Amino acid sequence: MKSLNIGLIGYGFMGRTHSNGYKRVNDFFPELKHRPVLKAVCGRNAEKVQAFADQWQYESIETDWKSLIARDDIDAVDICTPNNSHAEIAIAAAAAGKMILCEKPLALTPEEGVRMCEAVEKAGVANTVWYNYRRVPAVTLAKQLIDEGKLGTIYHYRANFLQDWTINEDLPQGGEALWRLDAAAAGSGVTGDLLAHCIDTAIWLNGSIKDVSAMTETFVKERMHNETGKKEKVTIDDACAFMCHFENGSLGLFESTRYARGHKALYTLEINGRDASIRWDLHDLHRLQYFDNSDEGRLKGWRSIHVSDHSGDQPYMDKWWVPGLQIGYEHTFVHQVADFISSLESGEAMHPSFRDALETQQVCEAVLDSAKERAWKNV
Amino acid sequence: MKSLNIGLIGYGFMGRTHSNGYKRVNDFFPELKHRPVLKAVCGRNAEKVQAFADQWQYESIETDWKSLIARDDIDAVDICTPNNSHAEIAIAAAAAGKMILCEKPLALTPEEGVRMCEAVEKAGVANTVWYNYRRVPAVTLAKQLIDEGKLGTIYHYRANFLQDWTINEDLPQGGEALWRLDAAAAGSGVTGDLLAHCIDTAIWLNGSIKDVSAMTETFVKERMHNETGKKEKVTIDDACAFMCHFENGSLGLFESTRYARGHKALYTLEINGRDASIRWDLHDLHRLQYFDNSDEGRLKGWRSIHVSDHSGDQPYMDKWWVPGLQIGYEHTFVHQVADFISSLESGEAMHPSFRDALETQQVCEAVLDSAKERAWKNV
Amino acid sequence: MKSLNIGLIGYGFMGRTHSNGYKRVNDFFPELKHRPVLKAVCGRNAEKVQAFADQWQYESIETDWKSLIARDDIDAVDICTPNNSHAEIAIAAAAAGKMILCEKPLALTPEEGVRMCEAVEKAGVANTVWYNYRRVPAVTLAKQLIDEGKLGTIYHYRANFLQDWTINEDLPQGGEALWRLDAAAAGSGVTGDLLAHCIDTAIWLNGSIKDVSAMTETFVKERMHNETGKKEKVTIDDACAFMCHFENGSLGLFESTRYARGHKALYTLEINGRDASIRWDLHDLHRLQYFDNSDEGRLKGWRSIHVSDHSGDQPYMDKWWVPGLQIGYEHTFVHQVADFISSLESGEAMHPSFRDALETQQVCEAVLDSAKERAWKNV
Amino acid sequence: MKSLNIGLIGYGFMGRTHSNGYKRVNDFFPELKHRPVLKAVCGRNAEKVQAFADQWQYESIETDWKSLIARDDIDAVDICTPNNSHAEIAIAAAAAGKMILCEKPLALTPEEGVRMCEAVEKAGVANTVWYNYRRVPAVTLAKQLIDEGKLGTIYHYRANFLQDWTINEDLPQGGEALWRLDAAAAGSGVTGDLLAHCIDTAIWLNGSIKDVSAMTETFVKERMHNETGKKEKVTIDDACAFMCHFENGSLGLFESTRYARGHKALYTLEINGRDASIRWDLHDLHRLQYFDNSDEGRLKGWRSIHVSDHSGDQPYMDKWWVPGLQIGYEHTFVHQVADFISSLESGEAMHPSFRDALETQQVCEAVLDSAKERAWKNV
Repeated sequence: MKSLNIGLIGYGFMGRTHSNGYKRVNDFFPELKHRPVLKAVCGRNAEKVQAFADQWQYESIETDWKSLIARDDIDAVDICTPNNSHAEIAIAAAAAGKMILCEKPLALTPEEGVRMCEAVEKAGVANTVWYNYRRVPAVTLAKQLIDEGKLGTIYHYRANFLQDWTINEDLPQGGEALWRLDAAAAGSGVTGDLLAHCIDTAIWLNGSIKDVSAMTETFVKERMHNETGKKEKVTIDDACAFMCHFENGSLGLFESTRYARGHKALYTLEINGRDASIRWDLHDLHRLQYFDNSDEGRLKGWRSIHVSDHSGDQPYMDKWWVPGLQIGYEHTFVHQVADFISSLESGEAMHPSFRDALETQQVCEAVLDSAKERAWKNV
Repeated sequence: MKSLNIGLIGYGFMGRTHSNGYKRVNDFFPELKHRPVLKAVCGRNAEKVQAFADQWQYESIETDWKSLIARDDIDAVDICTPNNSHAEIAIAAAAAGKMILCEKPLALTPEEGVRMCEAVEKAGVANTVWYNYRRVPAVTLAKQLIDEGKLGTIYHYRANFLQDWTINEDLPQGGEALWRLDAAAAGSGVTGDLLAHCIDTAIWLNGSIKDVSAMTETFVKERMHNETGKKEKVTIDDACAFMCHFENGSLGLFESTRYARGHKALYTLEINGRDASIRWDLHDLHRLQYFDNSDEGRLKGWRSIHVSDHSGDQPYMDKWWVPGLQIGYEHTFVHQVADFISSLESGEAMHPSFRDALETQQVCEAVLDSAKERAWKNV
Repeated sequence: MKSLNIGLIGYGFMGRTHSNGYKRVNDFFPELKHRPVLKAVCGRNAEKVQAFADQWQYESIETDWKSLIARDDIDAVDICTPNNSHAEIAIAAAAAGKMILCEKPLALTPEEGVRMCEAVEKAGVANTVWYNYRRVPAVTLAKQLIDEGKLGTIYHYRANFLQDWTINEDLPQGGEALWRLDAAAAGSGVTGDLLAHCIDTAIWLNGSIKDVSAMTETFVKERMHNETGKKEKVTIDDACAFMCHFENGSLGLFESTRYARGHKALYTLEINGRDASIRWDLHDLHRLQYFDNSDEGRLKGWRSIHVSDHSGDQPYMDKWWVPGLQIGYEHTFVHQVADFISSLESGEAMHPSFRDALETQQVCEAVLDSAKERAWKNV
Repeated sequence: MKSLNIGLIGYGFMGRTHSNGYKRVNDFFPELKHRPVLKAVCGRNAEKVQAFADQWQYESIETDWKSLIARDDIDAVDICTPNNSHAEIAIAAAAAGKMILCEKPLALTPEEGVRMCEAVEKAGVANTVWYNYRRVPAVTLAKQLIDEGKLGTIYHYRANFLQDWTINEDLPQGGEALWRLDAAAAGSGVTGDLLAHCIDTAIWLNGSIKDVSAMTETFVKERMHNETGKKEKVTIDDACAFMCHFENGSLGLFESTRYARGHKALYTLEINGRDASIRWDLHDLHRLQYFDNSDEGRLKGWRSIHVSDHSGDQPYMDKWWVPGLQIGYEHTFVHQVADFISSLESGEAMHPSFRDALETQQVCEAVLDSAKERAWKNV
């Protein structure tokens, strides 16, 4: 068993999900020949980062990401910082010859993204972006069905990502906890945070997007800012919807909001093909809804496939428990770590790569531009 | 178009459902050569029965069922009175040569039931009992699937009929409105009212029941009686559950109650076979859940068949609307009227007949005996 | 009981649903003082219209709608013809002093609609358009909740109407059966046929729409035409999606298609408010999903309200059966007839009126224009 | 941080779930002052047990459980062996002063169970049995609601545990992989394997069971035995159903089978109280269905509470992710480890203890006796 020494930068929510992925992967993927080692975690606040290191058993801490990148005992850098620092860190890490696992969205802008892609490609370092929902077993199964042609010609793709956590006007913006509400740190609101997931999955499942027409809205116009201590204009999009055409001729409809009372993380997608349709929903992530038009007429109906069934080769599920017993959200990160290590061992390309994530970034940019200009935009 | 002259005895809830069946059948079943004519409705309270006749457009009223039966212009007698009068009326109607459509349960006891069967068979009159749930399209579809062998060997049959309308202790018993809470009028509580439906469907779908072990409970021991004006002992079963063996070797589990908070008329059934399973539920009566083990492994799942789909020959559905549009509870009675008339025209036997309903009565009796004696009982 | 003499023009699918409404209304709404009488049905093919009259018990037939309108014994004219004849018939009927019940959409264009409104208002005749989904009990309940303010500020409105019946390229267009696929008869495709329903409900529930950005698609470009016998260009929209702003500041997202494999008539709507959200779905039309943010934190969840519950005043449900037993699609038309007669008797305005339907027509026009010009359009 | 040295005996499916519990607990429960250390794993096959130790990072192996128990560096013994060895190992471990975490069911018979209880109580060692479903967050929430009296008087309790994995007659019995099909090793079939879970939860939620009437069935009478290499009589129960009375006056209905085609591990429970009802289902384990009769009449309905909501204090959920993101089956074991360590630290009693599990064993025994004798049995 070889070591894969991890240096984690940032230790918020995503720092936890990634750390869990590294710690669990070898228990469940015994065929892997590398074991991730939690070598160092980096953050500006030494006390807090030490507490995180203690809890998660990181061997050491750093308070400056440049020091982390400079260490010889780090093989892979995992970037979990706010979006506005991804580019600088990633480009430096690539220059230092580190593998990079970067949180999504890739960057603030496509321009940054291009530079990041060029950096990792020039350095020849392994790279991936944590669009983890590709590795929900039911979503991976959807990918298989589409690639096998079971859906036939695709007519429609629709996806939502609905939350309700920012309805309260008293919620402040900015700072360590709420940087996602500040465009300076996040780049955008729901577009980069939520729709980026939907777009990544859509491109993966249904191919490239050609053009978009979007609208955005900021329902709460001002919020107290944690850094200035004053009410400041809210600069992010609270909600965003867009229509689009895919290259394959199908129509797309996407919506995201943090003002959909009653939904916490309702990422749903539906794809209608000539021969079959599928639906999926993150709140009940173990089920894939499937309608197969080749079923006998009298008995056609949407099938609720519980991917724990084990009657066939449901993706990833043989690694876990026995039939009927489900896994959860965090397992998508374990899967991504497993596939990342597999790709190192096999030499096959890892996806989503920085290059894949750049395409999503370009769609996000077109969406934001379209909303601003109230006009269709080509991607 | 010939007339089929109907004489209705009793004009409560069931009087309405049957009348609706008679009035609508020719609009939707144009192939029938008989049209039901609402000739007379009978009840003891002349004022109330006249109001009912006016609302539903009955041509005349009677206040004594014997007069109704004596009329030459009545072809078929429909018995919607409390259970304790079914036998007397039916036997007299048979003797008068009338066709009989009798509400369920057939009788108070199997002994009464036997005499009723002998009466109609001796008279050679058409007869049926309103176990209407056989004619929910999704249930009829279940019957087709079972008869075609799609389920294979049956291992398990389970059915519930759950209500919650008698939880309130202040609800009185007896009288015109609440005779179902008085064993003198109803014979039993949930056993004859609700489980009888479950048993009728079960025998139809899965064959005869061999033996039973049951328990009953009366949660509210005393209720004000509408006839005496005093608190009286409650004589019915509020809840009843039983286990059984079917002749085909499968196991049955049945439960009914009026104390299942949150359920109004939740009649559910599930049948597990070697090759496929089905589920159905009256609250969403248009869906049949179907699991087919011959589906591809990776894609096995419960199908939610919406019988309005029209992609095949869903039973009865071609008579109604276009795909996706559903019918409701009352349509089961329209279907039963249509099938009754069809049977008259074709000469084929109508089911459920009195004889069919007698078997259900015998199971009910065994259930009540078993509960009383705390012992298994053969049917 | 007074008579309300009905003259029906057109006897297709909608001719059946309306006829059923007229025939059943007094059985279930005994408080009404008028009884619809099926005086005459009109169609160009005498043989077919006579068969319809026989089945549904119309007293007479006409083969020219002008003759029908000229008859003194007709009180109300019901227009069920293809959309391109609504205006001419309605304007003539108004001039003849007839009440008018017109199928949706009101007209081919807003211009026609304006003339129709002016005609009925000038003549002072009762008028309504059959946007029947307002009268699904669960949808009416949604209206009550919104009007009572239970949802608070509305942020989002989304609606779909998904079908799959035109995927087959071999399906022809035009003629009596398939005029809905020919823009000359129908005006548009899914926009006027399906989205018009969604828009009518949306305006009723959430107020006026300010501007729209739409896209349409015609997946099958040519179909055999039943009138020419040749392959002709398909002139309708097979699919249409649009984004919009409501006057109240909320965002709308609408989609309709006949290429959503697996859906037959999946009209769904969801409304997210500050304090509560609701969802509804035509395939399970008896349920209203309701999320109330004032529920205790630990116990917040979407409630599946089965409107048959009878624990409160669920709209219309007291007219039908006992708790737990559901009604279906066709009942919406019975409700509309009942409310139309009530409005005659009370003198209160009937909705949706021609004027209400005109607003929907204007939104449809803006949607089609927006799609054509790929630009936002004000309504 | 203190160590809690674990010695695991048996390394099958449950060995994996427990090991995962030990390894993850401190990452998510940082308040604990003990860290489980995977000191040793024990099994008879040295090669296989070493492979397990390597995969899960156990420090050492043993091939004789007596050696394991004799080691000074083991604080707690975890028993994951077939049921017929629980008693001997547990009694010896107690005598050696070890804490004991024992897989369910506790023992083969109540007699064995009594001796085990006496042993741990005499030795004064911490003990628990892995009835893990108590610690599904939704089930723990159900317990809170019941204890707070939200359901009021309980009328009905019903539970199922349905699987379909033994339908194939070619499946053998016995040996390491299939000891669950051999009564010599397992004690019973579905009664001890599946119903024991249902009974444990039921007693925890609804109190003691007074008497039972049961039936069992063995559908496949003979199977090849892995130890003899020959077809042998099947000695376990393939299916078991029972009715019961709880001490609190409510009625219970339980069923378990491995012949319910389409269900993998469908553990469902429903409890009907005077004031509220709850439902839960292992296949969608994150949802608690809740009907509260104090909701406004018009708006009563079953609430689907997704315990990830985080709007209140959903049990255990604050330890994991953000709203909307779910955990899975394996987390129940992490919770049990956390609670076990907490109980060590606080001195509060841990449940379920051996004594708690003994009561479940006694109900199982009464169930099996009742089925054999076809008679009601007191517990």
